[in-house]
Amino acid sequence: MVYIGSYRREYLFYNEPSTPPSQNPNPHSISINPNSNFRAIIGLRLPSVCKLHKMALIDTAAAMIFTDRSSSSSSSTARLLIYNSTKFQKFPNTISPFRRSNSLRFGISSRTSSRTIITHCSSSSASAIQVNNETFAKVIDGKRVAKDIREEIAVEISRMKEEIGIVPGLAVILVGDRKDSATYVRNKKKACDSVGINSYEVRLAEDSTEEVLNHISKFNDDPSVHGILVQLPLPSHMNEQNILNAVCIEKDVDGFHPLNIGLLAMRGREPLFVPCTPKGCIELLHRYDIPIKGKRAVVIGRSNIVGMPAALLLQREDATVSIVHSRTKNPEEITRQADIIISAVGQPDMVRGSWVKPGAVLIDVGINPVEDPESPRGYRLVGDICYEEASKVASAITPVPGGVGPMTIAMLLSNTLLSAKRIHNLR
Amino acid sequence: MVYIGSYRREYLFYNEPSTPPSQNPNPHSISINPNSNFRAIIGLRLPSVCKLHKMALIDTAAAMIFTDRSSSSSSSTARLLIYNSTKFQKFPNTISPFRRSNSLRFGISSRTSSRTIITHCSSSSASAIQVNNETFAKVIDGKRVAKDIREEIAVEISRMKEEIGIVPGLAVILVGDRKDSATYVRNKKKACDSVGINSYEVRLAEDSTEEVLNHISKFNDDPSVHGILVQLPLPSHMNEQNILNAVCIEKDVDGFHPLNIGLLAMRGREPLFVPCTPKGCIELLHRYDIPIKGKRAVVIGRSNIVGMPAALLLQREDATVSIVHSRTKNPEEITRQADIIISAVGQPDMVRGSWVKPGAVLIDVGINPVEDPESPRGYRLVGDICYEEASKVASAITPVPGGVGPMTIAMLLSNTLLSAKRIHNLR
Repeated sequence: MVYIGSYRREYLFYNEPSTPPSQNPNPHSISINPNSNFRAIIGLRLPSVCKLHKMALIDTAAAMIFTDRSSSSSSSTARLLIYNSTKFQKFPNTISPFRRSNSLRFGISSRTSSRTIITHCSSSSASAIQVNNETFAKVIDGKRVAKDIREEIAVEISRMKEEIGIVPGLAVILVGDRKDSATYVRNKKKACDSVGINSYEVRLAEDSTEEVLNHISKFNDDPSVHGILVQLPLPSHMNEQNILNAVCIEKDVDGFHPLNIGLLAMRGREPLFVPCTPKGCIELLHRYDIPIKGKRAVVIGRSNIVGMPAALLLQREDATVSIVHSRTKNPEEITRQADIIISAVGQPDMVRGSWVKPGAVLIDVGINPVEDPESPRGYRLVGDICYEEASKVASAITPVPGGVGPMTIAMLLSNTLLSAKRIHNLR
Repeated sequence: MVYIGSYRREYLFYNEPSTPPSQNPNPHSISINPNSNFRAIIGLRLPSVCKLHKMALIDTAAAMIFTDRSSSSSSSTARLLIYNSTKFQKFPNTISPFRRSNSLRFGISSRTSSRTIITHCSSSSASAIQVNNETFAKVIDGKRVAKDIREEIAVEISRMKEEIGIVPGLAVILVGDRKDSATYVRNKKKACDSVGINSYEVRLAEDSTEEVLNHISKFNDDPSVHGILVQLPLPSHMNEQNILNAVCIEKDVDGFHPLNIGLLAMRGREPLFVPCTPKGCIELLHRYDIPIKGKRAVVIGRSNIVGMPAALLLQREDATVSIVHSRTKNPEEITRQADIIISAVGQPDMVRGSWVKPGAVLIDVGINPVEDPESPRGYRLVGDICYEEASKVASAITPVPGGVGPMTIAMLLSNTLLSAKRIHNLR
C-alpha cells in the first residue's frame, strides 16, 4: 500500500503487493502516535518519488510522530506497514480518503527496495479507512518456527547422546481406535523419530481396564522413559482424572497435573512442565520478538489445557491479562483492548475484525473444520479468528493451519528433552 | 427513603430513618433505573416539607422506576442513599441538575434525623453529580459477617461433637519472636476458643532448625489435628517453601500448597482448601448478595496468597477477570471498567475515586498503617482504596479496618472445620 499524494485534506494511497504473504513474513513497519493531533504525509524514498517526497515535506505538521521500527511492536495503535512493489505508479482509482481515528491503520509490507508510504491525516472524526482487500498483518509462521525448534532439539539430543550416552524417551498410550487419536499418535511418533527421541507406543483395546494403569506404572519406573503421554480423550468408561494422576509428575510432559498448574500460577515457583499448546503460543511470541511485558493480553477461552495455562503464562511474563469466556457479556469490547489475543474456544471465525485493536498480535489456537465443497476433502480448517478480517487490522497473526498447530508437537518434544535433561542432571 | 411525588418532571423524596447508624449498618437505598429517561427531585418527608410534598404530588411521571431496597444490592448502577442533617431546609443551591449517564449515582449516608438530597436528572449527556461530602456506598461489614460465620461454625462444631464426639483441632507453629506474628497467633487461638476448635500452639526459637519439620511431621500424624498452620514470615535462614511443603495437603488449611492452587485454577476440579483471605473476599460478596457471574472483575495485585487465588475464585464464579499489577501500564483505566474490584497490594489509598466505576463493589484487602499524629498510637490503618473518594462512587465497599480483615480468621476456622468434616466423613 502506498500513499501517492495529498490534496488539501484528501490523502491518497495505492497498493500493489508483489510477493505472496508466505514469502514475506516480517513486514517492516512505521508507527504513528494516534494521540497526536497530526497531519502527516509519508513519502516514498525511491528516486522515482522524489517529487512526491518533496511535496510531502511541504505540509508535514508539527504534531506528527513517526517511529521507524523494524520488527518490534509499538505501543501506538496506529501502524504503517510498508508494501513492496517493484514499480511505483499513481493509481487514482485506488485513492482512499481517510481520517485519523482509533482504528487508523495502514498496512504495507516492506522488502528490499523499501518504499515509504505517504499518508496524510487530519484529526477530525473517526471513519473507517478504505483499504484494498489485502492481508496486512505479519504472518506468524508456526510451521517454520516448529521446524527450527525441532532442529534445535535434534542438536541438543545429539549432544546429550555424545555426553552421557542417553537419548530421551517418550511413551504414548492410546486406548481405543479413534481415527483422529491414532493420527495424532502417529504424528507424535514421527516427530520423535525426526529429532532422535525414542518413542514407545502402547495401543490398548477400547474395553481395557486395569491395563492402562499397569502400563503407566511400568513407564513410571522405566528409566529409559522420560515422558508419558496418555492420548485423550479416553473411552467414556474410564476415569480420566485418575488415569492422568497416575502419571508421575516428573514424567508428565503434558503438564496437565494440578501440581504443575499450581506451580505455573504461583509467583516465584516453577512448573516442571508447561502444557504444550500454551507453551507453543508464548514461544511464537518470543520467536517473533513480540513484547509481552506490560501489554494488555486477552485470552479467549478458559480450558484447563489451553486458555487457563495460557493466561497464567502471559501473566508470568508481566502482561496484564483478562480472560474472556462464554459468560463474558461484552467479549468484543474487552478483546478490542488487547495488544495480544490468544483465542482457544473452537468457534470458527468467532473473533471478527471489529474485535481487534489495530496493531494487535493474534494467536489463534482454534482448528475448526468448516464445510467447503470446493475442497477435495469437503471441508477446510479455520481458526477461531476470522483471518480475512482480522489480518487487516492486526500487526501479526497465526494462520490456521500452520500457526499454533505445529507448535504443540514441537513443545511436546521440548518437554520430553527437558525431562530427560532434568532426570540426568544435564544442563 | 420514600418517594413523595413529582412535579412535572421533578420527583421528590424524603427519608427519615429512625434508628441510629450503629443499629442500622446497612444504609437504606433506593435504586433508580439508570436507563429510564427521568428528572428527579428528592425531598424530605419531615412535616416541614409538607408543602414540597404537596407540590410534588401534582404529577407522577411514567418513565421513572424506583425500587425500594432495604439492604440487598441492586443491579442498577444508580442508587440513592440518604443524607444526614438535623434540620431540613430548602437549599436551592444544593439542587444539582445532572444528566443520566452510566455514572448516574447519588449517595447519601443515612443517619439519625435524615435529610434528603434534592437531585434533578435529565437524560442527555453525562456530567458529574454534585453531592455533599458524605459516604454513599453500602458498607460491607466484615466484622459482622465474620461474627455470623463464627456463630455458624460454633453450631456446626457442637453438632459434630454430639454426633461423632470429635471437635476440630488447629495446630499453629510460631518461630521466632516477631511481635506482629505473636499477635496474629494469639488472635487465631482466641478465635478457635470462641467456636470450640481445639488449638495447639508451638513456639520455637528463632534459631531452631529441624524442630519445625519435626513438629509438622508430628501434627501430620496426629488425628486430633485437622489443620496445620505455620505462621509466616519464617526466619530468613529457613526455607519457607520446603517447610510449607512438609504440611500434608489434607491439613493445609491455609490452602497455599501448589496442588491446591492448581486445583483451584482448573475447571471441574476442586481444591481441598481455598486460601483464607481470598475466600473471605468472595464470602463477603456472597453474603451481601452481590452477583459475580458475568461481571467484570479486576483484581489489583497478584500475590500467591491473595491476588492470584482471588482472581481464580472470581473466575470460578464466572466473572470476567483482569489482573492488574505493578507492570500494568494503565491500571486506572482497566480498574474503572470493573463491576467488582478486589485490591490487595499494600499501597495506602492507591485506588482513587477516579479509578472506580460508579456502582462498583469494592473489596479492600490492604491494611496499611499511615502516620496520624491525632491517633493515640501515632498511626491509623487505611486500605489500598481511598475510602473517602471511592465510597462516593461505589455501591458497596469494605472498610479498613473491619472489612476483609476479620474474614481471614473466620475462613481459617471454616477451613479447619471443613478439614475435620472431610477427615471424619461428616457431611
